[in-house]
Amino acid sequence: MKKNGNLIDAFKQTKYQVAGHGPRDIQVLKEALDDVDGQKESDMYGKGKIIEDFQEKMATYLGKENAVFFPSGTMSQQIALRIWCDTMRINKVAYHPLSHLEIHEEDGLKELHRIQTVLLADAGRLIQLEDVMYMEEEVACLLLELPQREIGGQLPDYETLESISAYCREKGIKLHLDGARIFEILPFYKKAAAELCSLFDSVYVSFYKGIGGVAGAILAGDTPFIEESKIWKRRYGGDLISLSPYIISADYYFNKRLGKMGQYYEEAQELAGLYNGCKGITTKPLVPVSNMFHVHFHIPKEKLETILISIYKETGIGLTSYVRETSEEACHYEVSLGDRYADVPKEELHKAFQMLDEGLRKIGY
Amino acid sequence: MKKNGNLIDAFKQTKYQVAGHGPRDIQVLKEALDDVDGQKESDMYGKGKIIEDFQEKMATYLGKENAVFFPSGTMSQQIALRIWCDTMRINKVAYHPLSHLEIHEEDGLKELHRIQTVLLADAGRLIQLEDVMYMEEEVACLLLELPQREIGGQLPDYETLESISAYCREKGIKLHLDGARIFEILPFYKKAAAELCSLFDSVYVSFYKGIGGVAGAILAGDTPFIEESKIWKRRYGGDLISLSPYIISADYYFNKRLGKMGQYYEEAQELAGLYNGCKGITTKPLVPVSNMFHVHFHIPKEKLETILISIYKETGIGLTSYVRETSEEACHYEVSLGDRYADVPKEELHKAFQMLDEGLRKIGY
Repeated sequence: MKKNGNLIDAFKQTKYQVAGHGPRDIQVLKEALDDVDGQKESDMYGKGKIIEDFQEKMATYLGKENAVFFPSGTMSQQIALRIWCDTMRINKVAYHPLSHLEIHEEDGLKELHRIQTVLLADAGRLIQLEDVMYMEEEVACLLLELPQREIGGQLPDYETLESISAYCREKGIKLHLDGARIFEILPFYKKAAAELCSLFDSVYVSFYKGIGGVAGAILAGDTPFIEESKIWKRRYGGDLISLSPYIISADYYFNKRLGKMGQYYEEAQELAGLYNGCKGITTKPLVPVSNMFHVHFHIPKEKLETILISIYKETGIGLTSYVRETSEEACHYEVSLGDRYADVPKEELHKAFQMLDEGLRKIGY
Repeated sequence: MKKNGNLIDAFKQTKYQVAGHGPRDIQVLKEALDDVDGQKESDMYGKGKIIEDFQEKMATYLGKENAVFFPSGTMSQQIALRIWCDTMRINKVAYHPLSHLEIHEEDGLKELHRIQTVLLADAGRLIQLEDVMYMEEEVACLLLELPQREIGGQLPDYETLESISAYCREKGIKLHLDGARIFEILPFYKKAAAELCSLFDSVYVSFYKGIGGVAGAILAGDTPFIEESKIWKRRYGGDLISLSPYIISADYYFNKRLGKMGQYYEEAQELAGLYNGCKGITTKPLVPVSNMFHVHFHIPKEKLETILISIYKETGIGLTSYVRETSEEACHYEVSLGDRYADVPKEELHKAFQMLDEGLRKIGY
């Protein structure tokens, strides 16, 4: 705890940080509001130009008939799965064992909807067509998360997606996309969002990951699905009198950063290469397929933190603000590339990685 | 529909509007942000100084052990009732037939929690001690809404509240306060918020009614209750990565307007007096007990709209932006006093009411 405190402190004092867009401070909102006319009317319980325009824009972008803005992805995805369960009259859905719904939502889906879940694939790997084909239970919906965040942001190849989609359509299984990081994977697939989304019946996208907005999500699908989702949004207390702070920032940073996803992807590959060039470090995936990856070390967390702190102090480069214990003898952290990486001087960065490599060799790694 | 459109247009063109604080536009957020340092850190999934400080401030103000900030009252109140049902192991709650939960939430409480409800009192009047005493079913919790918004913002006398609270404590019924407009009723009761809240086990307050913030709510109670509510907040998808736009505006307008609730209350009495001085108009309540009241007319909606439009054009005073049909022969609207009333020139206001009185007399009211 103490060591970790030191790491955060040392990280905060670095001049350059390699990941993310910058601090999550109030300036993020202020910047988005700067050019907005104060006289612009707020949305009002889901109505009004500001929310309707953005919903239409995102529906078009995602190639879906309709879309609705939600305060959070958690809310929107539970609702999507509930609607598909009601539609199919089957109270069961399938997803990956490390799905956000399974590990980060305090079992909201089960507690609020009593929906049963089938966990497909092993936790450490992606869902493949075979997992879906040999699923023994009948489900209303299959949720695919692209990229699979908890295993470093891995992706199936596009043909696998197409075959899973075709299989689900044939079998009458609704296919939902957890696209929290959809913008970040388009450069790898070399597809437009609408083409990718055409494989799915419903799609959720987030505006505070790669896009870097304040909060908020869009759920997209056909009109009856979206109309039903608005009723559930009201039931959840998500139909706020005004969601405009989130809508404005979502739209602003969508416009600002959508075109930079290819850059973040290339930078992630470059940075992962620097990690993998160090003794005994492995990134997952080895070659990133989006702006993100995980960095795995086979040394105790405290030892790595000591090395990192000395690097931060010496080079002014902050690689990560935290390290998570994988086991007593191993640790890892997540890296998501954003605006910051481009500002990091390459010379200092290479020096930081040289120090990291040497530090690991020195402790006999 | 057309007429109504005309009323809104005419209303928007008036120079002075008697109700509310002003338009719900982006300036409301901008003003709250103006003096906030951009470097101030956002909250992060319910943690951080910005959210914790405000929660502590509101817990203290409401005289409760702990508090948690929610994106909406709908979410916070369903969760409060669910926790009390779980605590008491009784799946039933009681509230007024026109409670927000019963008529404005698409049955979220029932759909998400399968909680049964007992409707106390007739829709047109307040819940009295006798309604609680002679309730035939066993409930986990009684929700009281103060003031009862849908009947014009009426209040029981304080002794009734005390007796209901004492009865509930004796019988082991949890008492929850729907305090969406709690700030607005303190001048009538001449009580501090903490004293009023001491009658209740849990309290919800809103920041976009009398306070006039952008959105958001506080739920307050003892620590185990609040800790449990945070788990449900996560389940609902209400534990946003950042609620700071709402927290900042809630705090800003709380500081700005809390001291003005007495003024709004007096102005509501004055304005209701002007209405009741007109032929055939009745306000509910006759003498307001907060900043709000309803205005009832025994003429068809369209006829009233015609009169209002001519008043707006002649005097530049906007009395209401809408009229709701009560029946084919009657209509009504709600008035909530805020910052705007003080700016309305009294002479023009009296002229508007003279025209209203004459207009009603002319059509033989």
